[in-house]
Amino acid sequence: MIAIQDILDTITKEAKAESHKGKVANYIPELAKVDKNKFGIGLLDEHGRLFKAGDAEERFSIQSISKVLTLSMAFGLLGNDLWKRVDVEPSGDPFNHLSLLEMENGIPRNPLINAGAIVIADVLISQLKNPKEAFLEYVRNITNDPSIAYDTHVAASEQKTGFRNYAAANLIKSFNNLHHPVEEVLDFYFHACSLSMSCEQLVHVFYMFSNRGKCLRNHEYLNTNQIKRINAIMLTSGFYDEAGEFAFKVGLPGKSGVGGGIVALLPGKFCVATWSPGLNEKGNSKLGMQALEKLTTRIGLSIF
Amino acid sequence: MIAIQDILDTITKEAKAESHKGKVANYIPELAKVDKNKFGIGLLDEHGRLFKAGDAEERFSIQSISKVLTLSMAFGLLGNDLWKRVDVEPSGDPFNHLSLLEMENGIPRNPLINAGAIVIADVLISQLKNPKEAFLEYVRNITNDPSIAYDTHVAASEQKTGFRNYAAANLIKSFNNLHHPVEEVLDFYFHACSLSMSCEQLVHVFYMFSNRGKCLRNHEYLNTNQIKRINAIMLTSGFYDEAGEFAFKVGLPGKSGVGGGIVALLPGKFCVATWSPGLNEKGNSKLGMQALEKLTTRIGLSIF
Amino acid sequence: MIAIQDILDTITKEAKAESHKGKVANYIPELAKVDKNKFGIGLLDEHGRLFKAGDAEERFSIQSISKVLTLSMAFGLLGNDLWKRVDVEPSGDPFNHLSLLEMENGIPRNPLINAGAIVIADVLISQLKNPKEAFLEYVRNITNDPSIAYDTHVAASEQKTGFRNYAAANLIKSFNNLHHPVEEVLDFYFHACSLSMSCEQLVHVFYMFSNRGKCLRNHEYLNTNQIKRINAIMLTSGFYDEAGEFAFKVGLPGKSGVGGGIVALLPGKFCVATWSPGLNEKGNSKLGMQALEKLTTRIGLSIF
Amino acid sequence: MIAIQDILDTITKEAKAESHKGKVANYIPELAKVDKNKFGIGLLDEHGRLFKAGDAEERFSIQSISKVLTLSMAFGLLGNDLWKRVDVEPSGDPFNHLSLLEMENGIPRNPLINAGAIVIADVLISQLKNPKEAFLEYVRNITNDPSIAYDTHVAASEQKTGFRNYAAANLIKSFNNLHHPVEEVLDFYFHACSLSMSCEQLVHVFYMFSNRGKCLRNHEYLNTNQIKRINAIMLTSGFYDEAGEFAFKVGLPGKSGVGGGIVALLPGKFCVATWSPGLNEKGNSKLGMQALEKLTTRIGLSIF
Repeated sequence: MIAIQDILDTITKEAKAESHKGKVANYIPELAKVDKNKFGIGLLDEHGRLFKAGDAEERFSIQSISKVLTLSMAFGLLGNDLWKRVDVEPSGDPFNHLSLLEMENGIPRNPLINAGAIVIADVLISQLKNPKEAFLEYVRNITNDPSIAYDTHVAASEQKTGFRNYAAANLIKSFNNLHHPVEEVLDFYFHACSLSMSCEQLVHVFYMFSNRGKCLRNHEYLNTNQIKRINAIMLTSGFYDEAGEFAFKVGLPGKSGVGGGIVALLPGKFCVATWSPGLNEKGNSKLGMQALEKLTTRIGLSIF
Repeated sequence: MIAIQDILDTITKEAKAESHKGKVANYIPELAKVDKNKFGIGLLDEHGRLFKAGDAEERFSIQSISKVLTLSMAFGLLGNDLWKRVDVEPSGDPFNHLSLLEMENGIPRNPLINAGAIVIADVLISQLKNPKEAFLEYVRNITNDPSIAYDTHVAASEQKTGFRNYAAANLIKSFNNLHHPVEEVLDFYFHACSLSMSCEQLVHVFYMFSNRGKCLRNHEYLNTNQIKRINAIMLTSGFYDEAGEFAFKVGLPGKSGVGGGIVALLPGKFCVATWSPGLNEKGNSKLGMQALEKLTTRIGLSIF
Repeated sequence: MIAIQDILDTITKEAKAESHKGKVANYIPELAKVDKNKFGIGLLDEHGRLFKAGDAEERFSIQSISKVLTLSMAFGLLGNDLWKRVDVEPSGDPFNHLSLLEMENGIPRNPLINAGAIVIADVLISQLKNPKEAFLEYVRNITNDPSIAYDTHVAASEQKTGFRNYAAANLIKSFNNLHHPVEEVLDFYFHACSLSMSCEQLVHVFYMFSNRGKCLRNHEYLNTNQIKRINAIMLTSGFYDEAGEFAFKVGLPGKSGVGGGIVALLPGKFCVATWSPGLNEKGNSKLGMQALEKLTTRIGLSIF
Repeated sequence: MIAIQDILDTITKEAKAESHKGKVANYIPELAKVDKNKFGIGLLDEHGRLFKAGDAEERFSIQSISKVLTLSMAFGLLGNDLWKRVDVEPSGDPFNHLSLLEMENGIPRNPLINAGAIVIADVLISQLKNPKEAFLEYVRNITNDPSIAYDTHVAASEQKTGFRNYAAANLIKSFNNLHHPVEEVLDFYFHACSLSMSCEQLVHVFYMFSNRGKCLRNHEYLNTNQIKRINAIMLTSGFYDEAGEFAFKVGLPGKSGVGGGIVALLPGKFCVATWSPGLNEKGNSKLGMQALEKLTTRIGLSIF
């Protein structure tokens, strides 16, 4: 892995030159304003060495990437009881999530789809006194970076337009799988999604998933068994209806967000984050997917 | 139709003697308190003669029967433009209503399922200055009975527990087929459902569907073409997943509610209402269904 | 009903002049060859008087209209035990018939969708020694017309291309709701669909549904209760995903076929058949639907 | 990995002692006859060393495990054009496979569900002169074992009772995604499933997936990129509705069959096969799943 920096530089140059950059998500008004030409990549290797290129220090809305972090916190607090509330299977087609929820009595297929993350939010509200503050503290601690913060404009923007999330939360509640009021649960959920972080910050928080549950400062947040569980879920369910494609092309567990960010990791080896706001038709960052495919091909490493 | 009164008396006697009366709806706490032994029936014939037996004067929560009335009012105000917002086809299976909504882009299958009635509520809010007052006035005018009123306890009870309705409304809103805030639309919807009326009052308001759109005082609320439309919708979609069964056994257009009420009518001939709070496994009044089957069999009249 | 002949003549003239005639079904190669300009209409009134116009004497493939006739024969033979094998509820969306079959354990929603008619075919094979001959004899007897026959070219054409029907039949068989081999059942089913009849012949066979189960020669094939059942099923389920629309616009029980034929009837009054090969986007005859709407409007009669 | 033999011996002893062994598949009559007390395990490491315990040399019906082998052969012959005919995404719920097929126009979600393997069978029939012979030859070559054979009793048993497979094949054909007659395609498919192999034989054929596409004799059947693709598909879709659970508990790509066999592999390290005929409620071998979980835990190796 000597030439990591060169590889990141080349990937960034190619991404910046690419003319078809996908479409910026517009269903959250605040996100629609982001500059499509941004591209950043950061990598933290097993020795804690950081490599970065492009706009790796610029913050963006991590959106669904936060689902892995709320899951981690809830799993750490509740242990395996968590799986009574949410399943761990891939969700298949994205178009009928509510239909699946109906047929499976309000138990979401996995914690990385919206319905699942909403249940996780409900779990955290039960476990924590000040859930929004406590979750932010959790992320700041892992990264050792107190500057990480919610983007309240983005959270408010989703609160006004996230009708499908309100629909999902109410449906789950009708099956008694939500213990707190819908408004309260979604307020937490939207805040978690609104976390504003850079690629550099993301690799610092996801480092623990490639390092048996321990952050850079060697504090253990989850045990190796729990890390294995979360990595398995990321691999089978981290990329909406493109999980199989990503598993093949990149061959790493990971998670994407509609803000254009992607994180991925090779257990025991490294953790990587990319950012490019343009999405492909499946809702994953177009150039981010390409960048990660190039990275694993050029490094010659994947889990397969 | 000379022996109508005898037929109603016999039906009532048989119903009171029946030992298996079905299960009272318990998902709305207020409704669960109703006495299962109640049974009432009322009939208004083509000459405006009223026949009644049992607890025909006692008021109960009309619930989904109100959907026909909000539909009538909206159809009268908006005309055929209404069908851009809601379809007129039977909905098939009840278990996947949200799924159907998803696949049909937020256009409910018909105005007599919850999703459809929620869209109708939204239409009325657009058309009326004080929708709750105006709708109540509409029902009072048709029946010429100013004592008809909402049961605000029932409305409040639903407001607290009607999560599936919140889910449906938010899903519809995510497809831009709801123009007002979900809370406002459901507040109207729950109030309409909470109307408290007796069998006697119900036949007075539904009389117009058997009388070419005119109430007993001969005021025309809908034209004959509009009445035909609504009667057709009641026949194909008025009884949840038992519409086909009812069409056969009773052979009349009609509508039931989980409060245990059913109204039905033979165009040009009569309008009938029954009330018995116990429901069968499809959610329709058990003894009410039987009573109407007996009535059409003994009178020897149906649309088929 | 004095001016019936005039009304039929006018409707025919208007239909012949119409420039947008819909699309001829092409999934059965034999049907694709039919001349789009054909239009016929026939009506048999309560007194047995026949009125006809246009190509009312020309034979065409009655296709799904045959489902009402196999249902009648099976219902006559088996009585209410039939409903253990097939339900009587409208089927909602047409796109997911197989999905509904899966979720309802191989019990088709009603006998007028393909899956239901396949089960009916299986029932007839159990009840009859030579089912194809016996069914043909049944139709010839009701109409008193021994010239009625299967079109074996059409049957063979479907046998080669009807893969969705093979899929449905096998799925039903996997739930043990088919007692004979798939090939045998579909051979009967495709033959029944291939019946070649004119509008004039169709009104003679459907006359019994408007005449309490008795044919023109006064032989009773079904009792009034059974007729009521079948008419109710036609009304709620006779027109694919346009049943609600037809119930409103025409207001009569009826059944259409992809060959372009439609039959409909007003109990106690008349029976009517139309033929125009061009279909609308829902799979029903475009001009046939219009003709029947005009007819009931101009006559001023419907069940509503 | 010194103590491999000890680990396998212990696992076998524990499995033999286990009192709850799951239920033997009974939908294929031939399979129902198998002795539930059988348990075998075999492992082939990166150096080609074979370890085995229990009934590792006894042959059983590999059933769906064959899907990986037909996929490999088809992928080798057709390359990436294969993905025009079948997708690579996890399939979510198993109960509505036909429904998913309908909604995705006859393109199966992945090649390891029945519908997908049926399409793969169709591809092989197009590519090979004598497909059944050629496929058998392919498996014999990879393993260097000419004794491997189809169990024609099992194939015939499925041919008589596999109605859901006939349903799926016909549905796919209705979407023009099957180029040969259903009977011919399923004849091949049922034969492939009927392959009779022991754990020892299975690790010899699956060795190539852990060895960059090369068999023990160093012949390359697929390139490393193709192997990565197939391993990724096994990981996300190899265990019906328990793929997520297996990914976590075992953490290896693999495939199970209703005959009670499971194969799994760690790329670059080893390949393992287990056999225990009793299935859990998801259709995977109960003791096989446990054995593999123990193995990876005790060895301390997984992809995560």
